[in-house]
Order: sequence, then structure tokens, then C-alpha cells
Amino acid sequence: MIGARRGLLCAKGLVAGVSARTQVPRFFKNSPKLNIRVSAYSTKAVPLTAETYSDKVKRDERFKQLEESDIEFFHSVLQDPHGVITGEEDIEFYNEDWMRKYKGQSKLVLRPKTTEQISQIIKYCNDKKLAVVPQGGNTGLVGGSNPIFDEIIISLASMNKIRSFDEVSGILKCDAGLILENADNALAEKGYIFPLDLGAKGSCHVGGNVATNAGGLRLLKYGSLHGSVLGLEAVLPDGTIYNSMNSLRKDNTGYDLKQLFIGSEGTLGVITGVSILCPSRPQVFNVAFLAVSSYEAVQKVFVGARRELSEILSAFEFMDGKSQLLTARHLKADHPIESGEYPFYVLIETSGSTKEHDDEKLEGFLEKAMEDGLVDDGIIAQDETQLQSLWSWRESIPEASTIGGGVYKYDVSLPLSDLYGLVDAASAKLKEANLVDFDDDSKPVVEAIGYGHIGDGNLHLNVAVREYSKEIENVLEPFVYEWIQSKKGSISAEHGLGFQKKNYIGYSKNDIEIKLMKDLKNHYDPNGIMNPYKYI
Amino acid sequence: MIGARRGLLCAKGLVAGVSARTQVPRFFKNSPKLNIRVSAYSTKAVPLTAETYSDKVKRDERFKQLEESDIEFFHSVLQDPHGVITGEEDIEFYNEDWMRKYKGQSKLVLRPKTTEQISQIIKYCNDKKLAVVPQGGNTGLVGGSNPIFDEIIISLASMNKIRSFDEVSGILKCDAGLILENADNALAEKGYIFPLDLGAKGSCHVGGNVATNAGGLRLLKYGSLHGSVLGLEAVLPDGTIYNSMNSLRKDNTGYDLKQLFIGSEGTLGVITGVSILCPSRPQVFNVAFLAVSSYEAVQKVFVGARRELSEILSAFEFMDGKSQLLTARHLKADHPIESGEYPFYVLIETSGSTKEHDDEKLEGFLEKAMEDGLVDDGIIAQDETQLQSLWSWRESIPEASTIGGGVYKYDVSLPLSDLYGLVDAASAKLKEANLVDFDDDSKPVVEAIGYGHIGDGNLHLNVAVREYSKEIENVLEPFVYEWIQSKKGSISAEHGLGFQKKNYIGYSKNDIEIKLMKDLKNHYDPNGIMNPYKYI
Repeated sequence: MIGARRGLLCAKGLVAGVSARTQVPRFFKNSPKLNIRVSAYSTKAVPLTAETYSDKVKRDERFKQLEESDIEFFHSVLQDPHGVITGEEDIEFYNEDWMRKYKGQSKLVLRPKTTEQISQIIKYCNDKKLAVVPQGGNTGLVGGSNPIFDEIIISLASMNKIRSFDEVSGILKCDAGLILENADNALAEKGYIFPLDLGAKGSCHVGGNVATNAGGLRLLKYGSLHGSVLGLEAVLPDGTIYNSMNSLRKDNTGYDLKQLFIGSEGTLGVITGVSILCPSRPQVFNVAFLAVSSYEAVQKVFVGARRELSEILSAFEFMDGKSQLLTARHLKADHPIESGEYPFYVLIETSGSTKEHDDEKLEGFLEKAMEDGLVDDGIIAQDETQLQSLWSWRESIPEASTIGGGVYKYDVSLPLSDLYGLVDAASAKLKEANLVDFDDDSKPVVEAIGYGHIGDGNLHLNVAVREYSKEIENVLEPFVYEWIQSKKGSISAEHGLGFQKKNYIGYSKNDIEIKLMKDLKNHYDPNGIMNPYKYI
Repeated sequence: MIGARRGLLCAKGLVAGVSARTQVPRFFKNSPKLNIRVSAYSTKAVPLTAETYSDKVKRDERFKQLEESDIEFFHSVLQDPHGVITGEEDIEFYNEDWMRKYKGQSKLVLRPKTTEQISQIIKYCNDKKLAVVPQGGNTGLVGGSNPIFDEIIISLASMNKIRSFDEVSGILKCDAGLILENADNALAEKGYIFPLDLGAKGSCHVGGNVATNAGGLRLLKYGSLHGSVLGLEAVLPDGTIYNSMNSLRKDNTGYDLKQLFIGSEGTLGVITGVSILCPSRPQVFNVAFLAVSSYEAVQKVFVGARRELSEILSAFEFMDGKSQLLTARHLKADHPIESGEYPFYVLIETSGSTKEHDDEKLEGFLEKAMEDGLVDDGIIAQDETQLQSLWSWRESIPEASTIGGGVYKYDVSLPLSDLYGLVDAASAKLKEANLVDFDDDSKPVVEAIGYGHIGDGNLHLNVAVREYSKEIENVLEPFVYEWIQSKKGSISAEHGLGFQKKNYIGYSKNDIEIKLMKDLKNHYDPNGIMNPYKYI
């Protein structure tokens, strides 16, 4: 797929051709079917969210406690012993998040197989005032898909079918519980691509992606889910089935209600089906990995890439040097750029329809960037294995950032010029508090690193820690949120609010916006049973 | 911009190079500043909507009649004699739609200059129960922006400024009343493009585009406004100013309320400001105009173009032969393809960053399409003038379809394979009723023509008439809507519901969807003052 271009690029200082590494697995390769967690993280017990945050959250006494008669009702609906999970050990997977930061106390997990079953479950819960958490692949990063107290978990894992695919229009209709990678693999066979990609694709669900308005790695090219989702099916808090599984690219007949569910994190209902427009799969991919000596140069490379690579630019990711040191330690591998340690790295992906054209455009662009002194070194993947390997140095960062034992994750939008300033500011605060050392295990913080989707103005600030502690949290919060607010950024670019950011929404939204949101929540869910203690 | 490729294409049967025609003006070149209507249409008086449809609509007696004291209040708010229009003749422009099909009886037009003024106006109207119609460029096609009875018209025409443009991110913030073409011209100077284009660009407002979720000519490439609009400012029915003028590509902090306003046609509030992500302006455009002998071949050419031209394909429009006969009569010009009359024509636009690459891709694609017998004849524009001229044969159809005196417009989404079937079916019905003759002025219908955005599954069925009549309407409705429903299409792809389609929404939406919409309308506008008698 990627041709040999060693000569051309070597001449310009680009060392073409990484050694053919074994492909590094995408992070969190957990199979929901088996419920086995493959994790490199701390084996310490995860503390209960309700205890860690006892000063911030109390159980809402409006909600009924689960009784035996309720479980009997759910058995009668699901008619499947594997659909009703009550064993403490079996529930643990659903109660905990993958970062091992949040842990709920649910006593019941339901795994319905049909939308009709979910409707019956939710109607019953609403009538009885039983609180509920919808859960997809449980790969969220803000504690949005785990209970806080004894909410019933409704897992979509057993609703994982493709309903239909139209090869002329490229419209996929599927159950919400379909795993993203399975969706994309099926599309690949037909010459199409899912308009979203992210590291957790092996576990996350399409419905969860929509519920959290996931952004991911290729938003730059394919845009947001608000544009590509054509229809949804959802169960509302009173059990009503909202069926709007359109397969039309354009439909201006009334309010676009489905938009409300995109990014509502299970607080307005349970998404059960998704209809989405999938683009033609590009026929050629190129990936270049570049070393850059300043953040200013990173910005210039981006502006140039958008102008010169234009319609074939499909990803522009940046990583700081610290993130790559951490990733090298995690992967136990040498970095693909071996000529030294650089403060910044950039991964550029192009995708298009004609190999020679794309090669020529990318090479021309890179030559110019090197001539202009913006790029210090770099490589271009020469085959699919190398391409995947280069991507792994970007995609493995989230997992690498947990190798100390945990990670505080901040996913923020900022104006491009201010983007990296937040990492510098957070690092300085942590150093000032004498909490950081990359090698000294007596310090609670390993490192504050920054990486993300420059093309979307989206920074991931990850503070890799050896333990979660109030001391670290108090240094970081509300400092980080205040810093973001001062630059008119967003405290959540793509991860959502969940439990982590519920109390901080005021840093990104004004009072009227918040009031309107609360009104809407009350309008649809007057009993507040859907994913309580979170979001808004 | 377009190089000479005569040799190559002539050899394959493509006659390159139309004679350099004077550029045909885009339709409805009305300057809102002057309020002069340049129109080729009938000069017959437009009948009052309330009279034409007296069987369907009655004035809502909840609404107060306008009094002198109200006008005094509005004068005190606007502090500008030109901002308060009460003269019958001056109001006519605002009362009538451009198709001369709908006419309201408003006695008052307000032209506020600030969002704060609109807030005061709306709050007053809500308190007094005075009904209101927000109006942008008044280029709508379903009677959505004109009053039915005595609603007060709030024109956004005096709020027409660009608020800011960020050259790094491409984010434009503007007043709702900015004319689309003015926005695009300003963007062109900075190397950007507005992610929407449509025939009425010289008159329509950005705010109106958002309020109607306009689709237009380049949705295929740039996606829907649900994806590209980043923020909105709007005045709600109680006068609250909703300020969510974000300039972030990603922001997952709460419900995406702005989405509700996109396509709500002024029924939930008045959009006063828009923040929108604009792509880099392509550096090279190509336009090919092709003659195709069957609708089946049109579909095949489309599927091939999407696959082969992929990332550079920016428009794929089709027109039937009848639409081109009508357009030739209207433009008083020879058709660019002079080798004969064909049943179908296709306009393909590519846009990209490298001329040679795009030329090569397009030529390769066209050669193959001709070899495969899918394309009978065609031309490629050789310069900007020719490019505009070819576009005019597509963009002039809406105006051409009114040369008889009027037009019944149906803007529908259908599965690709069924798309043209609707034109055949409608033509057959009209012929059966003996209503049609292209040349005989004694027949009320000139012709039923079809054209539209194949790439979006969006057909425009236009029934060109010599007069509006119940007889024609009864032949067409509900027949057309029933036909669409039977194919699971949408009765409004991009024009919206307005007055025309209010009663037909049930053909495209189910009872639960409609109930949820009505609930939402009541939630935000309990007095129903915003754009009544329409939409839902």
C-alpha cells in the first residue's frame, strides 16, 4: 500500500523505513464477550466513587432500593439467565471503569437483546423510581458509564448486530452495542469506512460513541457525528421507543430531535440503534511521523498541511516528547525516530484515491517543511505494518500514561496558539508542589504529558500518577479548568462530562445555557432516573 | 483556472470548450438593501394565503391585534424611523414570497440592528401575545418566512455584519442577516470557503440558511450544517438571549441545544448570530457537463464518480432534458451540449489542491465512463467564465421553472433507484388529467421537470404552471406525498416544512416523533407566538 520512497526522503534528511516491528496492539483489547480485562494497570482495589467523593455526592433518596421482586420482573422480561447478572464478582467489570478510578455499587446488570425489552425495563424503572445507568463498551474516560451508588446497569453488549447496509448510499444501520471495530471491518469488506476511529475501537460500542459524541482520530476529515448520524432509535425515560432510524442524507421535516441524544451520555434515554452515513474507504493511506523542535513549528506545520494536503489530509496528531518517553517505557521499544529526543512529534495521515498523487503531495509538502526548518527529522511508513506501528506510538499513549498506576485525564479544546500552554502550566504547578519525578517512585506524579488532535484544537493533558490522591487533584483542579476558561476553551472536547466534570460545566457554559439544559433534562426525565449524579 | 484539454477529450467524443457566454446571473438577484424585486414572473397580484387556504387555516384568536401603542413601543426600542415599516406598499416585499405563491397581511415590519433589540421586541410580543415571523432573505420555497395573517415581521436584514474571522481555525462569526454571497466573498479573500452554496446566495441570509438547515450544491463535500455550525446566538420566545457563539470545533459539555435551532424555521426563536467552521478554499475547480441517455446510467456515473473522484468530488447534479428545454427558453440561449436533446444531463464539479492531479483524475474517469457507454457527450469548462456558464444551466432551473407564471415545488429525498420515478409518476398523473402542454397556453401546466443533488438523494420535482389552481394542486397532492411515503423518502429534503408542508409531516414522521416535536414546541413557546400556522 505504501511504496518505497527511501531515496527521495533520505536525501532530504528523512530516514525512511522503520524496522518492521511487531504491530503493537491497540490499547484496551478487552473482549466484552469474555469480560476479561487485559490491563497493565495497578492491581490495587479501586475505591468506591461514593467514598472518594463523599463530600460531593449523596445518594438521591427519591430512588427506590432494588428488591427481589424487581429482579423477578426483569427475569420475566429478558427470559435469559445470562441476561440478568447479580453475582458480585460478575458485576465488578461493569461497576469499575477501565482507568480503575471510578467504582459503583450496582447489584444488578441487565443485558437485554431487543429494544422492546429495554423499553419494558425502563418503563418499569421509571414507574418504580429505580435509577439506571446505560453502559456501552465501558471505555469512557469521565466515569459516565459506571454507577455511583446502586443504579441498575443496562449493558448494550448483547445488542450487537448490523441491521442493514446499503452499498449504494453507504448507510449503515446497526444495534447500539455493535463494537466499533466490528462495524469498520464489515464496512471495509464493502469498500466503506466508519467515519470515526479511536484507540478503544476494539471495545467501544457504536451506541456509546454516539451517546458521548466521540471525536477520535479522523474527525478532521469526516467531521462530527452530528453531521454523519442520520437516524437513531432510543428508549426514552418513560419507556417510549423513539424510532427515527432514517436512511436519508437530507430530511428537513421538523426538529432534528436525534441531535439531542448525540452527546447526552445516557441522561435522556438509552440509544438502541444507529443509522450512519459511511464514506467510501480511501484506497491509499500514507503516514508520516515527524520530529519538531518547538510548538510554534508544530502549528506552522499544521497550517501548511491543511493548505497543501487539503482534501487528502485525514489526521494531524501531535505528541510531546514526554509522552513518547512514557510510551517507549510502556512498549519496551525504541522510538521510530532514533536520531535524538525532540520536544514534539507530529503524525500526519493522508488518505485518497490515487497513490502517486498522494505520495507526490506528501513528499512535496515534507520537503518544503524541512527546507523551511520546521521539521527536524521524520519517517514515512513504507508498508501497512510500519503504518500501524507508527500509529501505535500515538494510540498507545493513553495506556502508557497509566503505567505508574493511574492517570488524571483532561480532554480540552483550546485556541491553537494556547493549546500546549496548558501542559506547561500544569507541569509547573505540579513541580512547584514538588509532586513530580519521572523515575523516583516516592513522588506521586510520574509526568504531565500533552498530545492530541491539533487539527481539531483538541489537547489531551494526561497527568500520569503512581496513585490517585486528593493532594494531586487539589493542585490540578480547579486550576486546569480556570486556565481553560481564561482562554475561552472547553473543559471537555470529546470525552464528555460524566461524573468527573459534572460540577465544572460552569467553566465552559453560561448560566442560561445551563438552565436550558436542566429544563430539558426535567422535560424528558422528570424523575431523574437516567444516569443520575452526572452530566448536568 | 481550467486548462485547455480539448485534444484529449475531443478524441474521446467530448467537445471541449463552450463558446464564452456572458455569465448568466444567479437567480433572484434582489438586493435586500434596496428592496427592489428583479423578477421574471407573472405580474398578476398574489392572492392572500389566508384566502387561498381558507379551508385549512384560521387566525388564532389567542393572538392580539396590533395597536398604535405597540408600534410606539417598537419605535422606542429601535430608535430608528427606517427600522419600523408600516406603509402597505413598503411591506409588500416582506408579505410576499418570491414565487408569488404566498402572501400575508402583516401591518408591521421591524428591522432591528442588535440582538438586544430583538430580545426586547420578542419579550414584549410574548407578554402581549403578538404573533411574530422572523424573516431572512425571503428566498424560502415553502412559505415559511411570510406571515399568513397579521403576524409582525422581524427582518434580520439590518443585522448583516461579520463579527470576526479567525484565519488559523477558519471559524467565521457573523450576524444572522449577513448575505451568504457576502460571507463567501469575504472568506475567499482569506483563502476559505463557506461550507454551503445555493442559487439564492445573492439574497439569502446565513441565519436563514441555518434556520432552514439549507443543503444546497456542495453538501456532498462539506456535509450538513449540523456538522459545520459550531455556535449560535438566538432569542428565545420569552426574550431570553441564548448565547452559545462557540468557536471550538469540539465541545462536549452538555446537550447540544443549538442543534434544535438548525432547521426549526423560526418556530423556537430568532437566530441572531452564527459561528461556523469554514474549510480551506479549494485551489482548483473543474466542471464537466455530460449528456446521459438513461436514468440508470446517471446512477452508474454517480457511483463511479464517488469511487474514482472520491475526495475531489464536490458536486454531482443531475437535470432531466425537460428542465434544460425550459432553461434554454428562459435564458434565450443554446444549450452547451449541441449534439442533440438528451433525456438526462449531469454536472460534475471537482475541487482540490493540485490542478494536474484533478485534471488527470477527471479525464480518466470521463474516458472510462464514455468507453463504458454511460456518457454520450459532454464538455469540460476551460476557464472560469465557462465554468460559471455551465453552472448556470443548473442554477437557472428554479427561475426557469417559473416563466409560465408559477411553480409547484417538491423537494424530496428518495432512495437513489427510485429518485426519478417520482417525476415520471407526476407527469403521468398530470397528462392523464389533460393539464399539460409545453407550448399551448390554454393548458395550466407547462411541464413537470426533475433535477437535483443525486449525491444527496435529493430530487427537486418542479411543476411549471401558467397559473396556481386547486385543480393542479389536487392532482399533485397528496399523490406526490403518498408516493414518497411508499418509498420511505422524505417530503422535504432541504426546503423545510413552512406553510406548504405543515399538514403533510405525517408522511415522513411517525406519531411519536410528531408528538415529541409538539411537546418541544410547547416547552419553548407555550404561547405559540413564533411563526405560527406553520411547521408543526
